[in-house]
Amino acid sequence: MKKSVTIQLIRESDTPLYIQLFWHLKRLIEEGVFDGNERLPSIRKMAGDLEVNNITVVNAYKLLEKEGLAYSRIGSGTYVCSGGHDRHDLERPGAVRNGVQIDGGGETHVKPGVINFASSTPDPELFPVEHFKMLINRVLDRDRGNAFGYHEIQGYQPLRQAVCEYLRSYSIEACVDNIQVISGAQQGIDVVSKALIDFGDCVFVESPTYRGAIEAFRSRGARIVDIPMEEDGIDLEELERKLPVYRPRLIYIIPNFQNPTGWSYSEYKKKKVLELIKGYNTYVVEDDFLSELGYTRRKFAPLKVMDREERVIYIKSFSKIFMPGLRLGFMVIPEGLWNRILSAKHVSDISTSGLLQRTFELYLRDNLWVRHVSYMKEIYSGRYEMFIKAVEKHFPRAVYYKDPEGGLHLWFKLPEGYFAGEFYNRCLKRNILITPGSLFHTSNTDDSHFRMSFAAVAPERIEQGVIAVAGVLKEYLAEEPFFPYRTDGYSPFV
Amino acid sequence: MKKSVTIQLIRESDTPLYIQLFWHLKRLIEEGVFDGNERLPSIRKMAGDLEVNNITVVNAYKLLEKEGLAYSRIGSGTYVCSGGHDRHDLERPGAVRNGVQIDGGGETHVKPGVINFASSTPDPELFPVEHFKMLINRVLDRDRGNAFGYHEIQGYQPLRQAVCEYLRSYSIEACVDNIQVISGAQQGIDVVSKALIDFGDCVFVESPTYRGAIEAFRSRGARIVDIPMEEDGIDLEELERKLPVYRPRLIYIIPNFQNPTGWSYSEYKKKKVLELIKGYNTYVVEDDFLSELGYTRRKFAPLKVMDREERVIYIKSFSKIFMPGLRLGFMVIPEGLWNRILSAKHVSDISTSGLLQRTFELYLRDNLWVRHVSYMKEIYSGRYEMFIKAVEKHFPRAVYYKDPEGGLHLWFKLPEGYFAGEFYNRCLKRNILITPGSLFHTSNTDDSHFRMSFAAVAPERIEQGVIAVAGVLKEYLAEEPFFPYRTDGYSPFV
Repeated sequence: MKKSVTIQLIRESDTPLYIQLFWHLKRLIEEGVFDGNERLPSIRKMAGDLEVNNITVVNAYKLLEKEGLAYSRIGSGTYVCSGGHDRHDLERPGAVRNGVQIDGGGETHVKPGVINFASSTPDPELFPVEHFKMLINRVLDRDRGNAFGYHEIQGYQPLRQAVCEYLRSYSIEACVDNIQVISGAQQGIDVVSKALIDFGDCVFVESPTYRGAIEAFRSRGARIVDIPMEEDGIDLEELERKLPVYRPRLIYIIPNFQNPTGWSYSEYKKKKVLELIKGYNTYVVEDDFLSELGYTRRKFAPLKVMDREERVIYIKSFSKIFMPGLRLGFMVIPEGLWNRILSAKHVSDISTSGLLQRTFELYLRDNLWVRHVSYMKEIYSGRYEMFIKAVEKHFPRAVYYKDPEGGLHLWFKLPEGYFAGEFYNRCLKRNILITPGSLFHTSNTDDSHFRMSFAAVAPERIEQGVIAVAGVLKEYLAEEPFFPYRTDGYSPFV
Repeated sequence: MKKSVTIQLIRESDTPLYIQLFWHLKRLIEEGVFDGNERLPSIRKMAGDLEVNNITVVNAYKLLEKEGLAYSRIGSGTYVCSGGHDRHDLERPGAVRNGVQIDGGGETHVKPGVINFASSTPDPELFPVEHFKMLINRVLDRDRGNAFGYHEIQGYQPLRQAVCEYLRSYSIEACVDNIQVISGAQQGIDVVSKALIDFGDCVFVESPTYRGAIEAFRSRGARIVDIPMEEDGIDLEELERKLPVYRPRLIYIIPNFQNPTGWSYSEYKKKKVLELIKGYNTYVVEDDFLSELGYTRRKFAPLKVMDREERVIYIKSFSKIFMPGLRLGFMVIPEGLWNRILSAKHVSDISTSGLLQRTFELYLRDNLWVRHVSYMKEIYSGRYEMFIKAVEKHFPRAVYYKDPEGGLHLWFKLPEGYFAGEFYNRCLKRNILITPGSLFHTSNTDDSHFRMSFAAVAPERIEQGVIAVAGVLKEYLAEEPFFPYRTDGYSPFV
């Protein structure tokens, strides 16, 4: 072994050798003895050094993968995930690299001068601060100290009422008891996980998907099963095949302008998902963070609209369309889950800030919300058109994407033999930020995609930015592709 | 069995009979077939009906107790916990009973006319709304949209800086990297649980203790072990004895003005706790929600002050002294845990509201905080004196309490043969709210204590309220005490 690390296995122990080896390696990874993306010793080498069977090492490596500590490239070996140890790195929330901070959802805090195609957060200058300030003052003058007392766990009743009325415009029928106010959509995912997932329960996710959701499920000890995301929604065949095998507790999906692909479910697939889950004791968690942002004539209705059997937990985020730092959102909860969700919310933070709830209630009531959404839609659709046009004009044809007809990002596929992690690094050197696709996977096996968002780039910099990215792309694609080959004629990960 | 419920056990199954019986009963309790506080059939009756061994039933009942679904009274039998099923009742957060809503911590939303000795939340009229409003406007004018952008997961840096300076006045040394901003202390407990507790890990708690903490640990699948709380702090002998047996991951304590007892640790016990845990891979979680509120000359320093080995996670709440609905607090985190806490916070809600963080930063900097604390201390110490005086004057001597010298509540012990649950009900009928002690236990075995807080009762109503409670007390104590006796000569729970 490259590093002088001693691993001692106890042969007479009750614990199988591969488990012992797993624990040793886990510790070494967590202590940072192995670097992120460092290749672990080959199966043969490790087995030889430790005088154990190849299969012992194979099993230990597989466990590391399952735990999200390592990933494999077929034929090339097993690598340490960069998120596996306790140091700052790209894939950890709050990670800082080259002056760039990236969180699990691809959100970024960037030094000036960087062209940021990674963030899908709007420019703070677009926030409706003036209106919000006026309403905060109205609330404080009206409610005085009551704005800061404990609030109902479920949420401030008038806000829940206003939310119900707002939902009606989306054809979602809900009563105040259905509504749970949350401190942002991430908390919604966390609260649902607490309420429904016990250690060892299974959760289905689209692959790729939002990393913050994966982390929340993982934190509950869930077994996470990927279902591939296709251009018109989740892979139904896979879903149908895996449902009886895994009997998941939850299915987490983003039906409109999915993160990271930007793709949306067809009406057919939405209907079909609800049909397929019938008879299973499972709930669909619908994460709706963008469905207002369709830029063509196509309708992008929430899945919840079709939910006749009360199997959809609908989570609504305001972060991308309104203001991310507000930390406010809501969920629509099927009746059978009210109490469990209430307990989970109480355990999480007792209740959401009363001042913000009261202010947002007025914002909804005064119709400011509807006006703001159409304002944001106008801004974003303008950026979307400029972005797509620039990409069409400047990107090499070998890089594939599908026009999402809305949302905030595009999902690009590199030709075979080229890697998004490598491409990300090359962009970074030119002060350009994109998001490598591996951030959106349960394990880091897919390294062929990257995401670009046009939400945070000022219109006058969009084409210039796309040209710069295209330059890096062309340079990279001009090089020979790299096809991994088998080093030892033996691939354990089939 | 009283109710016509059929339980079928499968003798040829791999699952032991007592586990099967446990699952059946769990389902029946959760479906509400048994009422809260209903007595389960006796061991003999149940064993006879099902044609199983007594010990099978004993084990099933014990499991129910462990899961918090049932409790036993020695010699009298096993009872269903009222929190066990999915309906509104006293012990569930958000429960509404007789127009009174009680959450897990004993917080209450009360209809007018009720004398509320259950809440430890200050009157909203005492909140510094005017100052806070001024500062919010200052922040909005200064920071505009930036106040609503995504904020650092760890918290707004200038706020963390201000917190460090504030901590220095408590002799706690911390740097900005040590500080994690949280959306209230409950979230702090939840985040720490996520970061440190895996399914099956052990957590020590003081018994009795804050219910919201118990729920958070339980939600992680922790095994919760009680250590008795004494008048000068945790029972050191029990702690020393149980440490090597259970090797807990966390020890959750409230060293000053503990909830619900109001008791504080002696300097000796604080030092001793830190000594005893040496060599164990455990952390002490110090929940500090009141330590500013000492009304005598005695000093009530946080345990964190003594923490030389970086084993104390310090959680600071502002809810009781400042404004509960603000949902803001902070933690001081030992260096080795920074990244794990950061990930857990990110999973929980990404970050705390930026607007509130920025406003509170100014509140700390402008010294308004220090002034407000001394203002609240004056108010509370006045109520404390009136309350203690009234209790001394009007309560029967048979009801025991210890003067806490600070904080917001007193913890009373009824004489043997009298029950706090019953007493709670009698008070409720007179429109008086107290908190029965069983709310603060991991299982509902102790029914001899109740808590009264003087935080939310206006000074002019304190004596009148105490007289009313004393009236109910005297009436109850005038009745014959009830001593439970053995119905079948057999007590399985020894």
